Amino acid sequence: MFKRYFPILQWAPLYDRATLVDDLVAAVIVTIMLIPQSLAYALLAGLPAEVGLYASIAPLLIYAVFGTSRTLAVGPVAVASLMTAAAAGQLAAQGTPEYITAAVMLAFISGAMLTVMGLLRLGFLANFLSHPVISGFITASGLIIAASQLRHILGVEAHGHNLVQILFSLGAHLHEVNIPTLIIGVFATGFLFWVRGNLKPLLARLGITGRIAGVLTRTGPVFAVAATTLATWALALNGAGVAVVGAVPQGLPDLVAPSFDPELWRRVAVPALLISIVGYVETISVAQTLAAKRRQRVDPNQELIGLGTANIGAAVSGGFPVTGGFSRSVVNFDAGAQTPAAGAYTALGIALATMFLTPLLFFLPKATLAATIIVAVLSLIDLGAIRRTWVYSKADFAAMAATILVTLGFGVELGIIAGVALSLFLHLYRTSRPHAAVVGQVPGTEHFRNIRRHAVDLDPEVLSIRVDESLYFPNARYLEDLVLDAVTGDDKLHHVVLMFSAVNEVDASALESLEAINERLRDSGITLHLSEVKGPVMDRLRRSHLLDDLTGEVYLTHFDAMLALSPDRTRAALEAPRSETRRELLEAKPSAG
Amino acid sequence: MFKRYFPILQWAPLYDRATLVDDLVAAVIVTIMLIPQSLAYALLAGLPAEVGLYASIAPLLIYAVFGTSRTLAVGPVAVASLMTAAAAGQLAAQGTPEYITAAVMLAFISGAMLTVMGLLRLGFLANFLSHPVISGFITASGLIIAASQLRHILGVEAHGHNLVQILFSLGAHLHEVNIPTLIIGVFATGFLFWVRGNLKPLLARLGITGRIAGVLTRTGPVFAVAATTLATWALALNGAGVAVVGAVPQGLPDLVAPSFDPELWRRVAVPALLISIVGYVETISVAQTLAAKRRQRVDPNQELIGLGTANIGAAVSGGFPVTGGFSRSVVNFDAGAQTPAAGAYTALGIALATMFLTPLLFFLPKATLAATIIVAVLSLIDLGAIRRTWVYSKADFAAMAATILVTLGFGVELGIIAGVALSLFLHLYRTSRPHAAVVGQVPGTEHFRNIRRHAVDLDPEVLSIRVDESLYFPNARYLEDLVLDAVTGDDKLHHVVLMFSAVNEVDASALESLEAINERLRDSGITLHLSEVKGPVMDRLRRSHLLDDLTGEVYLTHFDAMLALSPDRTRAALEAPRSETRRELLEAKPSAG
Repeated sequence: MFKRYFPILQWAPLYDRATLVDDLVAAVIVTIMLIPQSLAYALLAGLPAEVGLYASIAPLLIYAVFGTSRTLAVGPVAVASLMTAAAAGQLAAQGTPEYITAAVMLAFISGAMLTVMGLLRLGFLANFLSHPVISGFITASGLIIAASQLRHILGVEAHGHNLVQILFSLGAHLHEVNIPTLIIGVFATGFLFWVRGNLKPLLARLGITGRIAGVLTRTGPVFAVAATTLATWALALNGAGVAVVGAVPQGLPDLVAPSFDPELWRRVAVPALLISIVGYVETISVAQTLAAKRRQRVDPNQELIGLGTANIGAAVSGGFPVTGGFSRSVVNFDAGAQTPAAGAYTALGIALATMFLTPLLFFLPKATLAATIIVAVLSLIDLGAIRRTWVYSKADFAAMAATILVTLGFGVELGIIAGVALSLFLHLYRTSRPHAAVVGQVPGTEHFRNIRRHAVDLDPEVLSIRVDESLYFPNARYLEDLVLDAVTGDDKLHHVVLMFSAVNEVDASALESLEAINERLRDSGITLHLSEVKGPVMDRLRRSHLLDDLTGEVYLTHFDAMLALSPDRTRAALEAPRSETRRELLEAKPSAG
Repeated sequence: MFKRYFPILQWAPLYDRATLVDDLVAAVIVTIMLIPQSLAYALLAGLPAEVGLYASIAPLLIYAVFGTSRTLAVGPVAVASLMTAAAAGQLAAQGTPEYITAAVMLAFISGAMLTVMGLLRLGFLANFLSHPVISGFITASGLIIAASQLRHILGVEAHGHNLVQILFSLGAHLHEVNIPTLIIGVFATGFLFWVRGNLKPLLARLGITGRIAGVLTRTGPVFAVAATTLATWALALNGAGVAVVGAVPQGLPDLVAPSFDPELWRRVAVPALLISIVGYVETISVAQTLAAKRRQRVDPNQELIGLGTANIGAAVSGGFPVTGGFSRSVVNFDAGAQTPAAGAYTALGIALATMFLTPLLFFLPKATLAATIIVAVLSLIDLGAIRRTWVYSKADFAAMAATILVTLGFGVELGIIAGVALSLFLHLYRTSRPHAAVVGQVPGTEHFRNIRRHAVDLDPEVLSIRVDESLYFPNARYLEDLVLDAVTGDDKLHHVVLMFSAVNEVDASALESLEAINERLRDSGITLHLSEVKGPVMDRLRRSHLLDDLTGEVYLTHFDAMLALSPDRTRAALEAPRSETRRELLEAKPSAG
């Protein structure tokens, strides 16, 4: 029990020298990669560069204690940084102390929310972000982020929280382009794209392959940072209008006491919740993917606590919201990290950099950081997923398209809310009008299938309806209409059998509908039977009057029901040769039924 | 098409003399019943008495044109009047012109919403109010209404929108009780309860039975009104502190132009939506119940238009929100109404009363109206439903209990919102952790059932899992965990068959999970098969890569799958004697599985 909440107790006692070496090597590599990334995401969030470094120290130490993934690396990531900028920008202007306070409080409140959700074991809530909604959201966020960073590449002023605002703002300032900035930006972007696409094949020709080549291609930003910083210093380009990071305070962050102003909490609550959930979904996806590769397990509810406490740690050390990032975790994994101790060593590395290296960052051009962001986020854009979703399901596509369009047009918060709301609405709409099929016996078998898709045998005196949905309040009334419409005007009919193989629940509303159906069929001289009622549903029905009032019987199998109600015909059909093979089923044309 | 939107065109051309007589008789009876009821519900809504009469004229005329029920009677009802009081009370103080304007605008906006929902065919939205939530809401509303009317019986001041407020307020004013008012109130209440409980048996002994006796017992309030009005006039009790209706303007209402102030619309939108939906659910339930008795049909979407235009009519003629009421519709039905023309004649009757009879209402004590309300709403309170729901389903009970407690403690609007939100949340929570069963062959059959409930045959090399839920985003990740946990550490296993008989949908998120399951099982040397995939699901899967990548096969029936994967054992089990009869299934003990 105690170990569940402190996963460090599971691996720390087994820690040995070999693991230490593996973890230290990984930590050095991740530290080198994280320094430019942390600065860049602070820039994206509209915060001073050092805030990015602060967010890469305490959270890593804390996650090492509470996290269940052995290789996840937490810290600032692109999408959460964009969401932070959008939320903090509603409370204060960029560059003000209030803006930094808002970002810190976003980390604190979302950390508190995640921790509470973890203690209440509410990890399942993250599932309500469907794959298409997340995928669409990340694609749209990537486009917004890339567009927002163009201003640093061009050296102009431009602002906005959605694509339309940003592009308009960029267009209005296009005449102010700063040529030295543009040269640095284009060089850095080009170099990073070259590294991403061409370095690995080049290294392969030099005989460097596998994990080492992968890790080297991830360190491209460090070279871009070094080269452009040197060039800016040597040519004094900051005097020629190239925006640089400037003076970064040296030393570790002061501890910050979180604010408990209820008005601030109220205003930050919704964005903090959205950042929490989006961040958690990214974290758990990355953690599970990496765990599966080494046949390890992560605990989704403990991950809420791990990420939540990491965010609280970010807040009290002056940082902004953090997430388990995909690219840094992959580098950590590929570099051979064995335990979360690698993250703790990375935190020490970043702390050392914060204490001693910040003067070197003075001449680092913002255009270079923007280039690293653009190259990173363009890989998040997945147009293939949009096409695949369109082909597979129009409802999923609608949720995805709504997420993308609302995110691009109205910003990240409304985008994610629209996606979740639409996917829930479409789900409820679909279950409120359930599919139902009239079924008949597949000759030569005890199996019953849809009469509109298969060549089956039917008795005109017995109507068999397979209800393809759990019965609950959104569709209770619909079921009533469906059954009563099906029997209207059919004088030969003596029996209706509802086949419940796909009915996983009958709630109190549906129970009333079943009672109404039973009563109205009785008035018409038709007997109502049930078949293939599942155990949990049967347990429930036994606690109601339905089974006492039912005019017919409950049968274990639909075949049993037909044997009782139409014995000769059912036995004859069972003896008949099979009309369809499995292969025919697979190749059958789709039909409307 | 045209006839669909104007149902009057379906019955008016066939209208004959016999129908006219039937409708006129019903109209006279309903008019007599409606006059005190309209006054009482106006009082409940905190409005002047004449507003109740106005709400019983235009809506009836308009419903006769647009409604599809032959016998529904629209007008003010108890629950909608309470909701009107709660909503209008948030915008203005009772007794002010602004309060009346708010009530009128509630009718207008909810009428507009209903009409638009009808044109968009959104009638299914009403299904999201589950039976337990409605039942709990009506019970709680009945308690609040009865408590709120006690002040008229006691002759004291007392206010509040929830039970707690009302009871505290009553307690604080209890020393101010007006004795003559209390005498009238107790007499009227006692008389009305006597009529409800004892008049029918008495009439039966006098040889009056059936419909006529039923109609006579409904006219009790008229006698109470007449007796107490006469007594108040004769004894000048209004001088002794008995509150009376007082001067009611004579004549038909002036037409009112609705306000289009966007701020007012914004503030009224949510309560208007709640009144619309609650009113519609009551209307459609009453209409369908009565239609079924005469084998008629009502069109749920056209009923939205009928009720919506009736409310717009109420608003422009100075009335407040109307609903298809249960008791008045039953009286109309029992009195022999054949067509909605009966409603139009009732409207004429009320209009005549408004023009000529209002002076007679001057001495009508408010205590008498309160008594009619109390007796009417106490019949709405259904404690048996609470007990039945508790026995049947704890989830449904939780939604019902939340609705009742929040309604009693925080008012009608929060109550209904809490009920709907909780029932949706519980549904989503349940589907996010679906039931799944390992199944085996029932000996002597081709049927497969849960190994934890039935004596079935199993092959240790083949694991058959029946998934008891549609697969979609809330449970996609859960399915992955479930299957992978089930196979972990089982070295004998060669095949997993997912039995899809209860899977009605596989959305894009679940598709990714299935692909992940297929891949991970392949890594463990286990083949994945599917069986009993339904037509619509198969159509969808054919548009993805899953069927190409699947390591195993798709089988028409689960029996086919087992014949292919474990032929000897499956054939042997089919030849074995049946271990269970249908009777045993029904009597089987519930189990955890």
